[in-house]
Amino acid sequence: MTLFGESHGKVVGTIVEGCPAGLPLGQEDIQRELDRRKPGHQLASGRRETDRVSLFDGTFNGKTTGGPLVVVIGNEDVDSSWYLKNQYVPRPGHSDYTAFEKYHGFNDFRGGGFFSGRMTAGMVMAGAVGKKLLSLHGIRITAHMLQIGCVEVEGKKNSQDPARLAEFASQSPVSCADLEKSGLMVAEIERAISAGDSLGGKIECVVTGLPVGVGEPLFDSTESVIAHAMLSIPAVKAIEFGSGFSLCGMKGSEANDAFQVEDGRITTKPNNSGGVLGGITNGMPLVFRVAVKPTPSIGMPQKSVDLRTREDAELRIEGRHDPCIAVRAVPVVEAMAAVCIADLMIIAQKIPRTLGD
Amino acid sequence: MTLFGESHGKVVGTIVEGCPAGLPLGQEDIQRELDRRKPGHQLASGRRETDRVSLFDGTFNGKTTGGPLVVVIGNEDVDSSWYLKNQYVPRPGHSDYTAFEKYHGFNDFRGGGFFSGRMTAGMVMAGAVGKKLLSLHGIRITAHMLQIGCVEVEGKKNSQDPARLAEFASQSPVSCADLEKSGLMVAEIERAISAGDSLGGKIECVVTGLPVGVGEPLFDSTESVIAHAMLSIPAVKAIEFGSGFSLCGMKGSEANDAFQVEDGRITTKPNNSGGVLGGITNGMPLVFRVAVKPTPSIGMPQKSVDLRTREDAELRIEGRHDPCIAVRAVPVVEAMAAVCIADLMIIAQKIPRTLGD
Amino acid sequence: MTLFGESHGKVVGTIVEGCPAGLPLGQEDIQRELDRRKPGHQLASGRRETDRVSLFDGTFNGKTTGGPLVVVIGNEDVDSSWYLKNQYVPRPGHSDYTAFEKYHGFNDFRGGGFFSGRMTAGMVMAGAVGKKLLSLHGIRITAHMLQIGCVEVEGKKNSQDPARLAEFASQSPVSCADLEKSGLMVAEIERAISAGDSLGGKIECVVTGLPVGVGEPLFDSTESVIAHAMLSIPAVKAIEFGSGFSLCGMKGSEANDAFQVEDGRITTKPNNSGGVLGGITNGMPLVFRVAVKPTPSIGMPQKSVDLRTREDAELRIEGRHDPCIAVRAVPVVEAMAAVCIADLMIIAQKIPRTLGD
Amino acid sequence: MTLFGESHGKVVGTIVEGCPAGLPLGQEDIQRELDRRKPGHQLASGRRETDRVSLFDGTFNGKTTGGPLVVVIGNEDVDSSWYLKNQYVPRPGHSDYTAFEKYHGFNDFRGGGFFSGRMTAGMVMAGAVGKKLLSLHGIRITAHMLQIGCVEVEGKKNSQDPARLAEFASQSPVSCADLEKSGLMVAEIERAISAGDSLGGKIECVVTGLPVGVGEPLFDSTESVIAHAMLSIPAVKAIEFGSGFSLCGMKGSEANDAFQVEDGRITTKPNNSGGVLGGITNGMPLVFRVAVKPTPSIGMPQKSVDLRTREDAELRIEGRHDPCIAVRAVPVVEAMAAVCIADLMIIAQKIPRTLGD
Repeated sequence: MTLFGESHGKVVGTIVEGCPAGLPLGQEDIQRELDRRKPGHQLASGRRETDRVSLFDGTFNGKTTGGPLVVVIGNEDVDSSWYLKNQYVPRPGHSDYTAFEKYHGFNDFRGGGFFSGRMTAGMVMAGAVGKKLLSLHGIRITAHMLQIGCVEVEGKKNSQDPARLAEFASQSPVSCADLEKSGLMVAEIERAISAGDSLGGKIECVVTGLPVGVGEPLFDSTESVIAHAMLSIPAVKAIEFGSGFSLCGMKGSEANDAFQVEDGRITTKPNNSGGVLGGITNGMPLVFRVAVKPTPSIGMPQKSVDLRTREDAELRIEGRHDPCIAVRAVPVVEAMAAVCIADLMIIAQKIPRTLGD
Repeated sequence: MTLFGESHGKVVGTIVEGCPAGLPLGQEDIQRELDRRKPGHQLASGRRETDRVSLFDGTFNGKTTGGPLVVVIGNEDVDSSWYLKNQYVPRPGHSDYTAFEKYHGFNDFRGGGFFSGRMTAGMVMAGAVGKKLLSLHGIRITAHMLQIGCVEVEGKKNSQDPARLAEFASQSPVSCADLEKSGLMVAEIERAISAGDSLGGKIECVVTGLPVGVGEPLFDSTESVIAHAMLSIPAVKAIEFGSGFSLCGMKGSEANDAFQVEDGRITTKPNNSGGVLGGITNGMPLVFRVAVKPTPSIGMPQKSVDLRTREDAELRIEGRHDPCIAVRAVPVVEAMAAVCIADLMIIAQKIPRTLGD
Repeated sequence: MTLFGESHGKVVGTIVEGCPAGLPLGQEDIQRELDRRKPGHQLASGRRETDRVSLFDGTFNGKTTGGPLVVVIGNEDVDSSWYLKNQYVPRPGHSDYTAFEKYHGFNDFRGGGFFSGRMTAGMVMAGAVGKKLLSLHGIRITAHMLQIGCVEVEGKKNSQDPARLAEFASQSPVSCADLEKSGLMVAEIERAISAGDSLGGKIECVVTGLPVGVGEPLFDSTESVIAHAMLSIPAVKAIEFGSGFSLCGMKGSEANDAFQVEDGRITTKPNNSGGVLGGITNGMPLVFRVAVKPTPSIGMPQKSVDLRTREDAELRIEGRHDPCIAVRAVPVVEAMAAVCIADLMIIAQKIPRTLGD
Repeated sequence: MTLFGESHGKVVGTIVEGCPAGLPLGQEDIQRELDRRKPGHQLASGRRETDRVSLFDGTFNGKTTGGPLVVVIGNEDVDSSWYLKNQYVPRPGHSDYTAFEKYHGFNDFRGGGFFSGRMTAGMVMAGAVGKKLLSLHGIRITAHMLQIGCVEVEGKKNSQDPARLAEFASQSPVSCADLEKSGLMVAEIERAISAGDSLGGKIECVVTGLPVGVGEPLFDSTESVIAHAMLSIPAVKAIEFGSGFSLCGMKGSEANDAFQVEDGRITTKPNNSGGVLGGITNGMPLVFRVAVKPTPSIGMPQKSVDLRTREDAELRIEGRHDPCIAVRAVPVVEAMAAVCIADLMIIAQKIPRTLGD
């Protein structure tokens, strides 16, 4: 996949190459995923993104042709005046400073340019294709919210049934499958809005239905490929597979997943490895969690510098922003997981190059 | 870089391509790094690896030629009889099962084949080249141990001086810069040895001297590239940059690093972002931590299955193994960081293709 | 660069990634190149392509931002009825048969889909960016026609001055710098039109102003990279560098280019190597020639097969088609050369990642 | 595949990654191919290369493991004194000058370093693996000599039976399947030896047994991939597919290959396209020809320059060299074709990732 576009440019979109021919695919498949990312309620930013998907090329008679898929959304006119006024005072936690230095000020700094969170719309659109392809092969990807600020879902996290996770998460405005915690998370976000502040969050993603043998040893391990993709999502700063950082404090006798035969299939108990051994899937659910930092745009005044004078400066960001970007990152995490896994499945020849064989 | 070799094959080695011409480099530069990985004391496995580096090609008159560097170590004869006897009973926590399924049993299962931890010797050798190159450009990479089992270094982790970190870590048999904790870690490991068990660990890596502007937006972000490499290291299951998973519980007003001018340079305070904003380095120390799972080979009997009969089986692993593989992973983490950063520096044209310009 | 679109889809376009920030670039730069590919006169196909370039993203204040450039042209409504009627009878010399087999009939066969010559519009648009970038670094790329059918430009081909070549070629409707031969070529094409037949052609490309040291040894040699790109252009079937196939019949004493010092610069005499030694540019003009096969769409009835019944069938292609596709391939060859050389220059660090340093 | 080594370094070798597990492979399979490249008779250079293959890793119980294959040959001690004496006077037609400029003199100039023709031994070793894999899938690759100096095989070149071509070519010291011409070629070479001169040659490669549908559209076309590889072979300066440059002078009605049904299979008549339409194989023999320039090392004195003083200089190359490097390039062309086609077959999922399914 290739992403293109800039926050205040004309379009944002994606090219998906290598999708097998013969996959039934329509604009509505992509629109449905994109709508999940929409800032449609009181918890999200004031920017109205009524994004309508255009699927330009790559399908014929309702099925993919084997050629590149081109999916685009237009950018509505947005007010760039704040950015023009504050061009030389980088927003803390944003890419403004590093982009200015790297591109000597030539980058489109308005709304973050191609560093903008809006680029994740392209990720979601590409992921919609991947999810459709994987669903035909019995693979299901479900991301849900584990933590927002100080509200955290407790208990054994990896063992839940993904269908139920998805069902409950879909009822929560913050995609939290624990509906009691979901309410507390909403309250936490409302408090942050009142304070002009923002919150971070932790998202878990569970992939079921994977065959054994996907992923390659060492540099193309399932974990390498997924970690690469997740850390390409703006604001994601960490990833752990299976029991992740908890493994640091475990003994081998606890951490090792024992093999067992269950209904003729080889499974492990528990699933501390998160479904991957030696970089290769073992048939258990693939489980990982990512950390999303708090939205860097906050209403409070912040300390910054003036890039021309190299003197200290104070910055006050205007407009409404997502109080918790993690909420909108949930479908993005699913999407990037879908793209990675579809790729690995094709490389491992578990999905044919042309469907309907 | 390309790795090659198998645990019980003839050699393990690496090819490093793209190293600038004109870098002073000798076998001793590589041997020194490799020796840090050596299982030379009572805390490590019984396998005697007196690895002697051979630098075959790629240097001339003591400097790199611009051509591929070839570095190899031989494998001494090792006893494969245990592996031959237990070929169809996969070790829990190892790649035995997934490799068997992926390669239909054709893989060299002895000692894990090319999934073996011994492949990390190739990583260390490639990293030695990267470290030498980076040191000429004022970049220093230091990894140290933060946690082994239940012993954890406390306090503000990201703010330490790397030269002092390296100095103290070098005095510790477990590379822990807090020498009091180091002693407790050693005791923890000794207890694990007695119990026939193993321990996980957490390693922090600090990179100083990086210029602003290294790394590319989105899919080649500094974090993506490093996460990809780290999760290619056998037994690494998680990575976090800067304040990582702690960011999930923070507010934006805490998490955002304020910009300031310090001695004419723009710096941030604190460094929750771990030196990366928008995927691009911001001139602050690059800080990340990885989780290393406990050595899966333990002395206790474990539950497994027989791959032929698909029935439950018990497995007892013989021989001595590293009680805490994290200890030997410290130079591997440094090495892979060095390779990634050298690559990103060359792509960003911060290091020339030929030195001495 | 990434190409997208299909002949009878909604758009054709290209994404250019990795273009240095700070390059002055407007839609008119791209439109100008695209117009050179236009089938605007009596020698070309009846399809009216009044292509208007849209430069969607990647520039700001008239300069590139460092982000991906997105350039698109719309496809006007074209009549697909002939293709629908003849879906199962592949046109000789086209990709119809191979695409049908590869994609099991799911490919968009109308007008050749993404195999269409129309995809070369995307190549030309990407090349316009490359040419602009290279021209700032003193590099000039000129392609001109050497042969159409039985009319061939004679004499020493490699030694001509590129500025004069370009000037004369621009006066010829077939881009032939020998204006007398140009007239004969036009007459040859008119005869082919009358006969309902088509013609092949040979194009030479000369690149001047290249520094010494561009290209990498072995697998990324200048010749490898350019040959790869040229043979991706539909209808190109051969490439030769310098004296090319003539070298097969030469002696070493003739073929070797002697080195000499000329105005303090090291040059060679002659330039049988076409400006490349060991895969690396030597500062002499880079010279190569490509063979373009005759347009496979001809008016005469042709022998084909029915893909359903696997029986012989006769095919009659309707509509007007370019009698000599080579004529329109001239700017495509320049464009792809520009993209390759810009890439190699950036890799060799002869062009900075951000301009205006 | 990755090549490593330098002409006067310790070893030359190759790493082959991605070879399916389960392929029967022994050192003798690789040695046999390598021996075909041996300068074993009076027509070749005086350098004695009694190369013994070492297959270090990547097989187990006589079959490939799925891991990287490492194949190495040692370099015997060779006399470097001539090169040390003439370090600053580049040999015409060689990479000496471009490498000196690119690497600022740090490159190993002895024998051409990693630009040496000796690197093609690594190509042949990798190709031996590809040929073995392809032969199991009914694919046969045969290269033979079409021209040396002024002696050229005439007649219809593409239609010959590959088994007979291979049989006759194997009886010729110059791999020419026309045994009468073979004798004339040998005489031509002997004349060149007497004159202290060298000769170029043209090699044709025929691949039979390919299924329909191999290769990808546009940038990964079969022609692009093979042209890329062929132009990475030192001394190769041109490539043409099917009727190649002859297509420039043809009419569409001649050039188009008509489809027909033959024994229930769809074939074309003739095969001007060389087995590729739209970048994708059409089931006909894949046919291409490459131009190999005359060995640049000749006995006669040549004009060069002194790189220190930038003044003209005369150069006299000592020692014996291959009078016609094309002779030894025949197995190299086969080898690189085998590597490319094996790759394309795996990508097209026509060869499984693990054999014995």
